[in-house]
Amino acid sequence: MIVVMKKGANAEQIGHMVERVEELGLRAHVIEGTERTVIAAIGEKRDEYRHSLESGPGVAEVVPILAPYKVASIEVKPERTVVTVGPFSAGNCHLGVIAGPCSVENEEQTVSTARAVKAAGATALRGGAFKPRTSPYSFQGLKEDGLKILATARDETGLPVVTEVLAAADVPLVARYADVLQIGARNMQNYRLLEEAGASGKPVLLKRGPCATMEELLLAAEYVLNAGNQNVMLCERGIRTFENHVRFTLPLATVPYLHERTHLPVIVDPSHGTGHTRLVPRMAAAAIAAGADGLILEVHPNPEKALSDGYQSLDFRQFNETMSLCRKVADAVGKEMARPVSMNPRDPLPALV
Amino acid sequence: MIVVMKKGANAEQIGHMVERVEELGLRAHVIEGTERTVIAAIGEKRDEYRHSLESGPGVAEVVPILAPYKVASIEVKPERTVVTVGPFSAGNCHLGVIAGPCSVENEEQTVSTARAVKAAGATALRGGAFKPRTSPYSFQGLKEDGLKILATARDETGLPVVTEVLAAADVPLVARYADVLQIGARNMQNYRLLEEAGASGKPVLLKRGPCATMEELLLAAEYVLNAGNQNVMLCERGIRTFENHVRFTLPLATVPYLHERTHLPVIVDPSHGTGHTRLVPRMAAAAIAAGADGLILEVHPNPEKALSDGYQSLDFRQFNETMSLCRKVADAVGKEMARPVSMNPRDPLPALV
Amino acid sequence: MIVVMKKGANAEQIGHMVERVEELGLRAHVIEGTERTVIAAIGEKRDEYRHSLESGPGVAEVVPILAPYKVASIEVKPERTVVTVGPFSAGNCHLGVIAGPCSVENEEQTVSTARAVKAAGATALRGGAFKPRTSPYSFQGLKEDGLKILATARDETGLPVVTEVLAAADVPLVARYADVLQIGARNMQNYRLLEEAGASGKPVLLKRGPCATMEELLLAAEYVLNAGNQNVMLCERGIRTFENHVRFTLPLATVPYLHERTHLPVIVDPSHGTGHTRLVPRMAAAAIAAGADGLILEVHPNPEKALSDGYQSLDFRQFNETMSLCRKVADAVGKEMARPVSMNPRDPLPALV
Amino acid sequence: MIVVMKKGANAEQIGHMVERVEELGLRAHVIEGTERTVIAAIGEKRDEYRHSLESGPGVAEVVPILAPYKVASIEVKPERTVVTVGPFSAGNCHLGVIAGPCSVENEEQTVSTARAVKAAGATALRGGAFKPRTSPYSFQGLKEDGLKILATARDETGLPVVTEVLAAADVPLVARYADVLQIGARNMQNYRLLEEAGASGKPVLLKRGPCATMEELLLAAEYVLNAGNQNVMLCERGIRTFENHVRFTLPLATVPYLHERTHLPVIVDPSHGTGHTRLVPRMAAAAIAAGADGLILEVHPNPEKALSDGYQSLDFRQFNETMSLCRKVADAVGKEMARPVSMNPRDPLPALV
Repeated sequence: MIVVMKKGANAEQIGHMVERVEELGLRAHVIEGTERTVIAAIGEKRDEYRHSLESGPGVAEVVPILAPYKVASIEVKPERTVVTVGPFSAGNCHLGVIAGPCSVENEEQTVSTARAVKAAGATALRGGAFKPRTSPYSFQGLKEDGLKILATARDETGLPVVTEVLAAADVPLVARYADVLQIGARNMQNYRLLEEAGASGKPVLLKRGPCATMEELLLAAEYVLNAGNQNVMLCERGIRTFENHVRFTLPLATVPYLHERTHLPVIVDPSHGTGHTRLVPRMAAAAIAAGADGLILEVHPNPEKALSDGYQSLDFRQFNETMSLCRKVADAVGKEMARPVSMNPRDPLPALV
Repeated sequence: MIVVMKKGANAEQIGHMVERVEELGLRAHVIEGTERTVIAAIGEKRDEYRHSLESGPGVAEVVPILAPYKVASIEVKPERTVVTVGPFSAGNCHLGVIAGPCSVENEEQTVSTARAVKAAGATALRGGAFKPRTSPYSFQGLKEDGLKILATARDETGLPVVTEVLAAADVPLVARYADVLQIGARNMQNYRLLEEAGASGKPVLLKRGPCATMEELLLAAEYVLNAGNQNVMLCERGIRTFENHVRFTLPLATVPYLHERTHLPVIVDPSHGTGHTRLVPRMAAAAIAAGADGLILEVHPNPEKALSDGYQSLDFRQFNETMSLCRKVADAVGKEMARPVSMNPRDPLPALV
Repeated sequence: MIVVMKKGANAEQIGHMVERVEELGLRAHVIEGTERTVIAAIGEKRDEYRHSLESGPGVAEVVPILAPYKVASIEVKPERTVVTVGPFSAGNCHLGVIAGPCSVENEEQTVSTARAVKAAGATALRGGAFKPRTSPYSFQGLKEDGLKILATARDETGLPVVTEVLAAADVPLVARYADVLQIGARNMQNYRLLEEAGASGKPVLLKRGPCATMEELLLAAEYVLNAGNQNVMLCERGIRTFENHVRFTLPLATVPYLHERTHLPVIVDPSHGTGHTRLVPRMAAAAIAAGADGLILEVHPNPEKALSDGYQSLDFRQFNETMSLCRKVADAVGKEMARPVSMNPRDPLPALV
Repeated sequence: MIVVMKKGANAEQIGHMVERVEELGLRAHVIEGTERTVIAAIGEKRDEYRHSLESGPGVAEVVPILAPYKVASIEVKPERTVVTVGPFSAGNCHLGVIAGPCSVENEEQTVSTARAVKAAGATALRGGAFKPRTSPYSFQGLKEDGLKILATARDETGLPVVTEVLAAADVPLVARYADVLQIGARNMQNYRLLEEAGASGKPVLLKRGPCATMEELLLAAEYVLNAGNQNVMLCERGIRTFENHVRFTLPLATVPYLHERTHLPVIVDPSHGTGHTRLVPRMAAAAIAAGADGLILEVHPNPEKALSDGYQSLDFRQFNETMSLCRKVADAVGKEMARPVSMNPRDPLPALV
């Protein structure tokens, strides 16, 4: 990292900072500019000590040079990670499509949705059994009963189940039913939960918090990876900005940016990422053109009567049309969207690759 | 609009607000809820009086119902506007591509770029002669000499010229050389300039300010349209958010959102919209998948030596590859990207349709 | 709430929405405007069904009228809540000052800081034992050993202890040592944690998430209040914006805004709210002028060597000066900053009022 | 500046960048770290070439070291600038208060407001004659008639007039009537206007654009200063963020931050900075505690009937109370708020100091 001294910093202050850098086990290299002195701190350590240098005497600012994440970095593992669970595959040329209701409401709703999204080309089923709700007065999910319904829908269709886990203590229960654990945006920095999800061995879908930077997202992934779990998918689901015509702003440059920095697959959620059904199909197509490795979409038999998020859910016809548009764009950019696999739906899921 | 009274607002306050509404020439309709009273204000007037009601006694808030823009609205003109200038066409199924250097630096640089972008499929040439620069110490553009060079490039290639105009007083000069007047993001609410540009009769490319709402953008367009000029293109060029890995956040949901509200074509600028060359090709493709009616891209023979914006410019090879990716996506979503027209470049431009 | 129909919505669509509103147990009141029809939905229910109506046929938007929080609302409890723990008091005319190190590093550091801040007028001690860290490679806190050190510092000084709890499962442990449980910004929507903290019976300091709206903050408080715990303090600690000269933007209008809506006290954190030591004193004073009921400040014997957040910590001299500036402003606006209480520090804390 | 090479950048790329740095007239100093090489570029030039280096081969990023503004910098002029016009003084220990209606509506409204604000302690009169309005259908101001009314109000009260100028072409007209030219937030980067205002010789009140960074604001001031005009006041008037309970977010840390960087006085506008009358008094007081050199406030005889911005205007009683609160806080922090000067109001204004 680079320690930039204030204009007029004196020799004593510079000497002090050189000492501080060396105390941290780094090599100090002083460069005197025409107006200011800077000290380059050289060594293997990451920039974790950056902040402690900032309050030194005569210091104007400290500029990091190395990224703070390691295991997630493409510099460490240049081959792209492909996450595969049964018919679902995301990463490299594989485009995975996760679709289903926001909340599991009952078996009929969930199973019919699973059948419909499978028929249209989805390769995984989403559905919320534990729901994080802004208001304590809103529907909080069916909990374990919801997980059982999801398992039934998997048995009926062969689609692996992606569902959210809200608390570290729930990981064992949810992992018993789910094929992929989703960490929601509100929990992106719930580190205890990240560690437990990592330890579960199940693939993890990690959603970006609505005001998280790329560095924070990658460091959150690092918590899961460090627990020995390599099957992490990052998910862009929209950020909070001043825009008031959408619920969230969906910044698709996230996709090519992350592809330059990390080997992990990047999924896009155009349902939460816009908050309006009518904007979803085009943003799903745009995500694929941007290079996304997968989509996660809210689908409901009758959005108008959904217990949550109806305003951003597609009905079956809309989902079909969206898949058809997406398939054309995927072909154009060289991504494979799995055609529905012919499998006996009651067979166990293939082992995780 | 709806005037929402505070809980506990008394009869006198409600009576006063009914009077105020009627003074404004609107009809007042009082609805008593279980907790609050609201007053619906009914009439032909737009919501321009909304704010004046907000400071009334006992008023909690005033909620607008009608959009404040008129001429730009798709409710007023359901057929989509197509802006056509020579080989360039944007709107409906037509995808226009405007490409060229950030700044006009000299004739060689500009003409060679114009030839290169035309060969790769661009249908208009961009280039800055008057440059708005954050710092007074930065290169400010060649001004009229730059305009002359742009005209030369047009003569050589047949590509119409899109260039920025910075001040109302410059409109006549710039309009003498340019085919399309660009209003930059910093000037989106420079109303005097909007009116002058509108009065010039030239098509206008209106860039969204980096913290403008959709309503503000459409009202800025309304200033141009009201001056009798129907050839307005809206341009999304990125917004300012907390994201620090891009220069601006490019919110592509702007495209389908505007297509629902207005008949005007929507152009996307992935160069400014990301601020990093490496993110441009994918975001250009994503913009088309989102339904964009055109792209505006920065291209330079040698970005490393560009006098401005080199960090977000494509070189000729990169532009070729971007066009090739874009053409595939355009085909996938049913947009026509004009193949280079075979025309005698010294012929005058066809009249404006 | 108000259901706004699209221009041109037909009688069938309007009839359908009237039925939907009535199905939800509300009364529907149709108002035909000159351009659009709106349906007022009247009844005791809060607007939780708002979103389900948004996807109805012909609906343009749904506008809420009632705030979704209840117990936190000043409409429900007009007298201001005062949270008192030993010498600390926040609310109404009482200004509480919580000060101490970001992380508990060792007994010497913590006890010396406790003595210093008490001498300067602080009425509670802060210190992190469980640290939420963006990077898994950063110092994660001393955990239970840290809690023991905090308890020692309380025994030495009589200052009650405010410390963060990171996970629902840790609440019993942390509550054994702490006087006030702090819910950090990253956990503002960790609902399981909010419920557990509520159930603990300890006063709760709830920090605003860096992109949380006022409504989301108040609904998070509602989770704690609903667990039967009335001693909740809200804390503004800065939001994430495009500003790049501060770590967070500190929006002090939060204070008078919340004072209009809720009876709960509002604490301000100028350390996290700016992220730079040099900006802290003025923003602490400004918070008091804005009406804050308390401050929480990072203080360290030697910020340059702090294991975390040194760049925003005050040293003892700076804290003294800040308190002296704050005391003058508190006097000016009629807030009482407790003068250090003379108490036998080894006495048990007075019971919670 | 520091050129950071990518991991694995080769000798040729490093050599190339060293050459590029030297071509720019700077000295290159190569530092080989354990993982990356960085090149320090040393010399007198500011970082204006930073961006052109970013697109070099093998370059990861370029980090600026020197601030790009010069004349505004406190490093260049350590004594604080005090702007004085008649009874108004802002800077150092002087707190100036500018108050008046958003729009000049008629003589009676303007003169009565001028008298009222003077009586309560304002030292300058604000009022808009040329109004920038988001919608072309809103009231656009009385233009020259409005300027004449302002001049009358000055004659009656002795208060200098602060009024907005919208276009470079209007500067001579507005400067004929006004004592201070206000550049509005929408025009902060209207460089032609900045230059003209600078050349007029009149003091300039430069408002921060709602998404401008500190660096952009200071560089905008630099345009005015470079035109030979040293009487520039910077004005914080709120920024655009995700917050939806205020019209703009008022970030008061702007004040101490700017006081560290520049000698120019900093004025705060709590009317636009909140957008709600009820939040204005407390935010005015907070601004003073933060160290502001002045306030600009909207005051109207009857806000409910104001032609613009009534929702954020104070009436005379509210203004009195606000001044009284502010005076106490000013005393607490050592700022002098001028007591109304006893002057013959028909005397000419004292010459500019």
